[in-house]
Amino acid sequence: GDGRMGMIYDGNDVQFASRARVLFTLTGESDAGLSFGAKFRVDQENYKADPYRSAARGSAGQIWISGTYGKLSMGDVVSASEAAIGDLYEVGYTDGAVAFDSEEISYLTADGNNLGQGPAVLYEYGINGFTFYASATDGSDRSWGSVTFGDNTEDEDALSNKVAYSLAAKYEVDNYNVGLGFGKHGDAKEIVLGAEGKFDQFSVKGVYAHYKDRSAVDAFAAITGKNPITNAAGANVTGDYNFKSTIGLSGAYQADALLVKAFWRQDKFTTDVVGLSNEKYNSYGIGADYDLGGGATLAGGIIDTDYLQDTVADLGIKFKF
Amino acid sequence: GDGRMGMIYDGNDVQFASRARVLFTLTGESDAGLSFGAKFRVDQENYKADPYRSAARGSAGQIWISGTYGKLSMGDVVSASEAAIGDLYEVGYTDGAVAFDSEEISYLTADGNNLGQGPAVLYEYGINGFTFYASATDGSDRSWGSVTFGDNTEDEDALSNKVAYSLAAKYEVDNYNVGLGFGKHGDAKEIVLGAEGKFDQFSVKGVYAHYKDRSAVDAFAAITGKNPITNAAGANVTGDYNFKSTIGLSGAYQADALLVKAFWRQDKFTTDVVGLSNEKYNSYGIGADYDLGGGATLAGGIIDTDYLQDTVADLGIKFKF
Amino acid sequence: GDGRMGMIYDGNDVQFASRARVLFTLTGESDAGLSFGAKFRVDQENYKADPYRSAARGSAGQIWISGTYGKLSMGDVVSASEAAIGDLYEVGYTDGAVAFDSEEISYLTADGNNLGQGPAVLYEYGINGFTFYASATDGSDRSWGSVTFGDNTEDEDALSNKVAYSLAAKYEVDNYNVGLGFGKHGDAKEIVLGAEGKFDQFSVKGVYAHYKDRSAVDAFAAITGKNPITNAAGANVTGDYNFKSTIGLSGAYQADALLVKAFWRQDKFTTDVVGLSNEKYNSYGIGADYDLGGGATLAGGIIDTDYLQDTVADLGIKFKF
Repeated sequence: GDGRMGMIYDGNDVQFASRARVLFTLTGESDAGLSFGAKFRVDQENYKADPYRSAARGSAGQIWISGTYGKLSMGDVVSASEAAIGDLYEVGYTDGAVAFDSEEISYLTADGNNLGQGPAVLYEYGINGFTFYASATDGSDRSWGSVTFGDNTEDEDALSNKVAYSLAAKYEVDNYNVGLGFGKHGDAKEIVLGAEGKFDQFSVKGVYAHYKDRSAVDAFAAITGKNPITNAAGANVTGDYNFKSTIGLSGAYQADALLVKAFWRQDKFTTDVVGLSNEKYNSYGIGADYDLGGGATLAGGIIDTDYLQDTVADLGIKFKF
Repeated sequence: GDGRMGMIYDGNDVQFASRARVLFTLTGESDAGLSFGAKFRVDQENYKADPYRSAARGSAGQIWISGTYGKLSMGDVVSASEAAIGDLYEVGYTDGAVAFDSEEISYLTADGNNLGQGPAVLYEYGINGFTFYASATDGSDRSWGSVTFGDNTEDEDALSNKVAYSLAAKYEVDNYNVGLGFGKHGDAKEIVLGAEGKFDQFSVKGVYAHYKDRSAVDAFAAITGKNPITNAAGANVTGDYNFKSTIGLSGAYQADALLVKAFWRQDKFTTDVVGLSNEKYNSYGIGADYDLGGGATLAGGIIDTDYLQDTVADLGIKFKF
Repeated sequence: GDGRMGMIYDGNDVQFASRARVLFTLTGESDAGLSFGAKFRVDQENYKADPYRSAARGSAGQIWISGTYGKLSMGDVVSASEAAIGDLYEVGYTDGAVAFDSEEISYLTADGNNLGQGPAVLYEYGINGFTFYASATDGSDRSWGSVTFGDNTEDEDALSNKVAYSLAAKYEVDNYNVGLGFGKHGDAKEIVLGAEGKFDQFSVKGVYAHYKDRSAVDAFAAITGKNPITNAAGANVTGDYNFKSTIGLSGAYQADALLVKAFWRQDKFTTDVVGLSNEKYNSYGIGADYDLGGGATLAGGIIDTDYLQDTVADLGIKFKF
C-alpha cells in the first residue's frame, strides 16, 4: 500500500491533506510457465457506487497473462502511447495532484477516456531493446448482465461505439530511451514522441504530442471551470477550440538522498471562430524529494499553471508500505 | 482471490470482459475447540453505496461458528434448499454470467431474496452421510441504528415482514448424493429435489423444483425486459403468471485436463388469465474447460436461453489466486 | 479483522444482526528510526460513494509518523479530549450500537463532527506519566482536486470554515488515570474531565463534560426522531435547547472469564424559550462478556435510554481475528 500526509496550499487556504491506500497484488503460474496476475487498490473497488471504478467489473485495476509471446493485460489499462512514453516527472508529496496533475500528458485513448466501453486490452512485446505496444477498446458501449458495463448510448455512430486504439514502440539502450506512439478514436488522432536520458546525477525527459480533430474540452476535463478559455466578454468558449499539441520537458538532479525535479509544459489550442485567437497554456513545476529510507520520503513542490488562477504548493511525507 | 479475462458475445457485439476480486477469509478457534470465521470479498463491502451489499452491515458475506453440534452461519447465507442441492453445472469462463446465470436454480428464500430483512441464518448438521439444513430470516424489515438494515415497509403484513425459512436434507454415499428441500415465504412455497452421481469420468446432476403461489416475476428478476412473457399484442404480462416449476439436468465429462459440461433447464409458467396460455422457457448450455494448472483455466461456453433474444457465448481464462 | 453474530431486541422485534470487517494495518520505519503507519478498515473505503468515508481521501482511517518528539496522526483522528478521556464502558455484543452508542461521550470536535473540513491532525507526546494531546482541523471546507474534500459552503463565516481544535492532558500512575480536555469550534466550547481506576477485579470510570453555546441537536444527531425533546403540543423543539453537560459513570467487575459491566449517563439540556423547561436525558446499561478464548467473546447487554422509546438488548458472539 501507500500513503501520504502533509499540507497543501490551494491558492487561498493551507489545508491538511492525507490518504492511506492498500494495493492487492495477485499472482500465479500455469504448468506451462505462463505467469498471470491481477492488481488493484481497495479504493478501485466501488461495485455499487460506480461501475466505472470497480475491479470486479473490469473497469479498474488490471488482470494479465504473460509468456514468451508477450504480455496481455485487460481492464483499466493505459494506452500503447502512454505505456511507451508516460508522463513528465511528478513534483511534491501529492505527486502533482495539488495542481490537478499538470505533469500528466493527456493521451487520447485510455487514461480515463473510453471508460464507457468497459475493459480495454494492452499487449506488450519486448525484443532486443525494443518494446512494442498495442491497445484497444472493444467498440461497444453496451452493458451486459454482470459481465461488462457501458454508456448504453442508443446511437450506434456515437464515439462510445467506436474502437479507440493505440500503437507504440519504445527503444531503450543503456540509460536512454525513445518512444513513439499513435492513437485514434473516431476522427481524433494523436502522435506522441518522447525521449529520456540519464547522465550521472541528471535525468531529462521530453514529450511532444500532436493531436488532430480533438476537442480542447479534453484538456480541461479534470479541472473544468477553474480557468477555462474565455472570450472578450468572459464567457467560457473552450468548446470552440481544438486541442492541437502539448510540448513538455522535465528534469531531475539526484544528490544522495535529495532529488530535485522540475517540469514545464505547454498546451496549444486553435480555433476557427471569428473573433477568437489561438491560446497557449503553460504549466511550470518544481519540487524536491528527500528520501528518509524505509519507504518514507519528505517532499514538497510548487506548481504554477495557466489552468488554475493561483500558484499552488504542497509539503509533506509520502509512504510506501 | 479470483479473476478472469476474455471475450463475450452478447448476441450483437463481441466485447472484452474481465474482472479481479480479492476474498478475505478470517478464522479462529476458541479454547474449547469451537472454530469460527468469516468470509467476504472486497466487492461485497459497499458500506455507503448499498446497505444490502455490505459485509460490515451483515448483508454480504458470512460469519460462522462451528463445533460438535453443527455449524451456524449468519449474513448473506444460502437457503437450506440451496445448501443441500445447489445449481446446475456452470459453463464458460464467465461461469454462465454471460447468460444471466441460466444454470442457477431460482430458490424461493435467500439467493438474493429477502435481503430487506437484514442478515439470515443457516444451520448445518452432519451425521452418518446425512446433512441437515435449516435457514431463516428474522421476519423484521426494520432498520435499527448501525446494527441491522431493512426495507422499512410500514405495512406489518408485507412479505418483507414475514419469516422466510427453508428446511432440507442431503444424503451422500460414495460418489452419489441426493437432496430434498422445502421453503416457505408468506403463501409461496417450494419443494426441490436434486440428485448427483459420478461414474468414472462422467458426472450427472438433476434438479426438480416445484413452486406454489410464486410470481413468475421472480424468474425474470435479474433479466427483466430481455424476453418477458408477452400477450398477443406484445405487452409484457409476466405479472399475470405463476412460476410453477423448474426441471434441470446437467452433465460433465472429464478427460485429463479437459472438462466438457452441458446443461438443460426448463421453467414452467401458468396463468388463469383468459386469453393467455401457459408458457415454457428452455435454456441450453454447453462448454469446455481446459485446466492450465496453477489456478488458470481456459474456458468457453455457448448458452441459448428463451430468456434472451439471442444465443450468447464466451471464451477466456479464469484464475484462482 | 473483527466480526459479530447474534440477536438484538430493538424494542419491538428480535432481529438477527451480524457483521464481518477487515482491518488493514500498514507500518514502516525510516533509516533514522522514525516509525510510521496507516490503519483503516475495508468498510472505511467508500471512494465514489462518500468522500467523507474514504481512507484514500483522508476522511477515514489514519496515517501517522512517530518518533522521540511524539506522534503525529492525520485523517479521521479523534480529538485531543477524546484521546485523553474516551468513552464509558461498552456493553453487549454490539458494543452499545443497539442503543445508538449511549456510552459514547459526545465530544465537540472530531468524533464525526467537522468532517466537512477534510482530514484533521492529532499530536500526542508522553513524558513521566503525562501525555499531552493537541488536535485541530484546518479551518477550510474547500474541496481541491483529488487531494482534499469539503462542504464547499460559500459563506466564509460558516462553522465549516472555522478551525475546530482541542487540547488535553492525561496523567497515569499505576492503575489510575485522570484526564482533562478543552475543545473549541466557533463559539461552542467544551471542558471534559475524566478519571479511571482499577482496584483488584473492579474498574470504575467517570466522565464529566460541560459545554457552552452548543446546540442540543448535536446530542440527537445519530438518533434524530427517536425521542426528541418535545413541547406540550408534542412538536420537536430540540433546536430550542442548548446541550449543557454530560455526567457519566461506568464500572466493571472481572471474575475469571466473566466480565460484568454497567454504565449510567445523564445529559442536561437548557432553554431560554418561554414555556419550555430544562430537560435531563438518562441512559442506563448493563451487560456481561464471557471470554471463550482465541478471540471469541459471548456477550449480552440491556440498555434503557431516554433517547429511545423502548429498552433494547442484544445477545451474541464477538470475534477478533
